[in-house]
Amino acid sequence: MTSEFETARPVTVAACQLGPVHLADSREDVLKRMFSLLDQAAKEGVKLAVFPELAFTTFFPRYLLEGEDLDQYFETEDPTKGGIEQSPTIKPLFDHARSLGIDVYAGYAERSLQKDGVHVDYNSSVYYSSQEDKVIAKYRKVHLPGTVEPRTESGAYQQLEKRYFRPGNIGFPAFRAPGLVEGALKKSDGIENLDTTGKGDPIVGMLICNDRRWPEAWRVYGLQGMEIMCCGYNTTAFPTTSSGHMVEMSLEAAEEQVMLHHKLSCQGNSYMNACFSINVAKTGAEDGNPLVGGTMIVHPLGYIIKEANTKEDELVVATIDLADCRRPKNTVFAFEKHRRPEHYNLILEQTGVVEPELL
Amino acid sequence: MTSEFETARPVTVAACQLGPVHLADSREDVLKRMFSLLDQAAKEGVKLAVFPELAFTTFFPRYLLEGEDLDQYFETEDPTKGGIEQSPTIKPLFDHARSLGIDVYAGYAERSLQKDGVHVDYNSSVYYSSQEDKVIAKYRKVHLPGTVEPRTESGAYQQLEKRYFRPGNIGFPAFRAPGLVEGALKKSDGIENLDTTGKGDPIVGMLICNDRRWPEAWRVYGLQGMEIMCCGYNTTAFPTTSSGHMVEMSLEAAEEQVMLHHKLSCQGNSYMNACFSINVAKTGAEDGNPLVGGTMIVHPLGYIIKEANTKEDELVVATIDLADCRRPKNTVFAFEKHRRPEHYNLILEQTGVVEPELL
Repeated sequence: MTSEFETARPVTVAACQLGPVHLADSREDVLKRMFSLLDQAAKEGVKLAVFPELAFTTFFPRYLLEGEDLDQYFETEDPTKGGIEQSPTIKPLFDHARSLGIDVYAGYAERSLQKDGVHVDYNSSVYYSSQEDKVIAKYRKVHLPGTVEPRTESGAYQQLEKRYFRPGNIGFPAFRAPGLVEGALKKSDGIENLDTTGKGDPIVGMLICNDRRWPEAWRVYGLQGMEIMCCGYNTTAFPTTSSGHMVEMSLEAAEEQVMLHHKLSCQGNSYMNACFSINVAKTGAEDGNPLVGGTMIVHPLGYIIKEANTKEDELVVATIDLADCRRPKNTVFAFEKHRRPEHYNLILEQTGVVEPELL
Repeated sequence: MTSEFETARPVTVAACQLGPVHLADSREDVLKRMFSLLDQAAKEGVKLAVFPELAFTTFFPRYLLEGEDLDQYFETEDPTKGGIEQSPTIKPLFDHARSLGIDVYAGYAERSLQKDGVHVDYNSSVYYSSQEDKVIAKYRKVHLPGTVEPRTESGAYQQLEKRYFRPGNIGFPAFRAPGLVEGALKKSDGIENLDTTGKGDPIVGMLICNDRRWPEAWRVYGLQGMEIMCCGYNTTAFPTTSSGHMVEMSLEAAEEQVMLHHKLSCQGNSYMNACFSINVAKTGAEDGNPLVGGTMIVHPLGYIIKEANTKEDELVVATIDLADCRRPKNTVFAFEKHRRPEHYNLILEQTGVVEPELL
C-alpha cells in the first residue's frame, strides 16, 4: 500500500531470529546457521537482513568472567589496521552476504584498541553494505542494563553489561543505506531547489536491546528522519528484582509481562517516530537461561506486519514500502509543526529524578 | 499487590468518561451528568476523579466559529479576581466534589485576561484539591494538533485547535496532591537525612489529548518522579489525511487503528515512565462526529487495569497502589543509572527533522 501522493519505495527486509547459542557452540556452528538464514533470505528477494545483539556467541554478560574466558567473546579492532570487516570470525558473514547482494545488521562485542595500547569494550552493532562492500555505520549501545558488581545474593541472576562494556560514545547517528530501494535521488542528480525529503536512499537507525525502551534514543533518530530502525536483542524471559531474583510469578505470566514491555517499546516508539522497525531476538533457552522471542517487523502506524512463531532460528520476511512513513511524518508527527522544545529542558538538564518538595 | 520492600500507598481513582456533548446540550445538562458520576464515585470510595478534555462543552474546534459563537465555550479568568474556581459554570463541580471529598481533574477552554486588556486562550486542565478547597495546579496543552487556517477542500474535517488556542506556556510541572494517600511523609515531619523518595504525597502530572503521543512530555514529568498521569481527550475515531479527509478504509478498521495508537501511547509511555495513568475520553458521536472511547486506567508495568465498555457516561474505578511504581523506577527505569543525556542533544536543538545528506 503506497501512501497518498508518494512514490512507492519498496524494499524486502528480513529479521533473522536466532535460537539459543550455547556455551559449547562454536563460532563456526553459529556462522553456518547465519549462512543458512541468509541463503533462505536471498531466495525471497531480501535486501537487508537484521541479526540479533551479540549474534555470534552466547549472551555472556549473564556470567561472571575474566581473562581469556571473557576475551574470547570479543572482536578486537585495531583502527590502524581496518575495522570489523577484517575480523576472521565475522568477515565470512559479510563475504557471504555480498555474494547474495544482501546488507547486514549484526551485533557483536567490540574491543577497541586505543593509541596507548589499552582497549575499551562496547556492545556494538554494524551495518554492512553489500553494494559498498564495507561497514558503512557502527553503533555502540548507549543504555547498558545491569550492574558493574556481581549480585551476591544466593540464586541471583547476573546481568553484567555495565561491567563488561562502556556506554556508547557515538550517540545515535542515522545514515543512508545505498542500493536498498530503486530510484533513490542522489546528490549527483544535482537537484538543488527541490524538496528531497523522503526521496533519497533509506534513512536507517540502529539500537541494541535495552535501548529500545528509551524514547530519547528513538527520538534522536526520528529527528534525523529515520525510516527503518534495526534493533537486535537478548531479553531474559522474566522480570527480576533489584537484587537479581525473579519476580514471584508463574513463568508463563512472567514471559507475558516481558513480551508486553517488548511490544509496547517497539510498537509504541515506531508509531511515535513514524518509522518501520525490525526487531530481532536471540531466543530460546541458552544453557537453561530462557530468552523471549517476539522477533517482529513493525509498521510506522505501530502495527506488527509480521512476527516469528518459534524460539528457533527463523526468518521473518516482509516487503515494506518506505512511502508509508510519509503520511504520519507529514501529519500527526510533523515535528516542525507540533514539537515545543522550549518545554523539554529537563530531558537534558537532569539525568535522574528530582521529586517536588514534600508538602 | 504491594511492591517488594515498599509500604502500600493505596488510593481509589476514577476515570469519568463522558458520552457525547451535543451543540444543543446546555452547561447545566453536562454538569448534572458530571454530578451523577461523582455521586457514583463517592459510593465506591473514590478520592480522585478525572474528567475529559474540554469536558463541559462539545469539542468545538471541529467547527469554524467566531465572535459570540466562539466565546461561549471559554471560561474567562481574570488573574486579579481569582482563578477558575470563580467561574459560575465550573464552580458547582468543585463545590460538589468538595462535599464528597473527591479531587478533580477537568479540561476546559481557558480565556486568560492580560494586563493590557487583551486575552490569550489555552486548552487547559486544572487539578482541584478537595482538601485544600482550591485549584492547586493548572496545565495548558502544549502539543496542539490541527491547523490555524480552515481546510478548504470539500468534505474536509476541521481540527482548529491551532487557531483557537496558543500552545501552553507553563511546561509540564508535576505537583503533589495532598490527602490522597494515608501516612504520606510531610515536610513538617522534619526528616532531613532520610531518603523520602516515593514516600510523600502522590506526584501527579497532567496532559491533554494529543500530548499523550509525545514522549518528551511524559519524560519531563517522569524526571519529576510522577506517579499518576491524568489525561483527558477527545479523539476522532478515524485517521485523516493532511488535507483533512478520512483515510480510505472501513470505519471499523479506522477506529481499530486509532485505538491502537491510543493504547500504544498511553500504555507505552506509562511503562517507560513507570507511572499509573488515568486516560479519559469524551466519546460517542457528537452531532454525528464519532469520537473513540478507550477510557482506561494503566499500571506502571504498562498493562490495562480497567477500561470502559461503553461510549456513554461511564465510571471506571480502580484502587491503585503507588508502591507499584517503585520496582520499575528502581530497576529498569532507574534514570540516574541508565540515562545518557549527553547523547540527547537533538531533542532540544532541533524542532523538526534534518535528514542526512543525499548520497
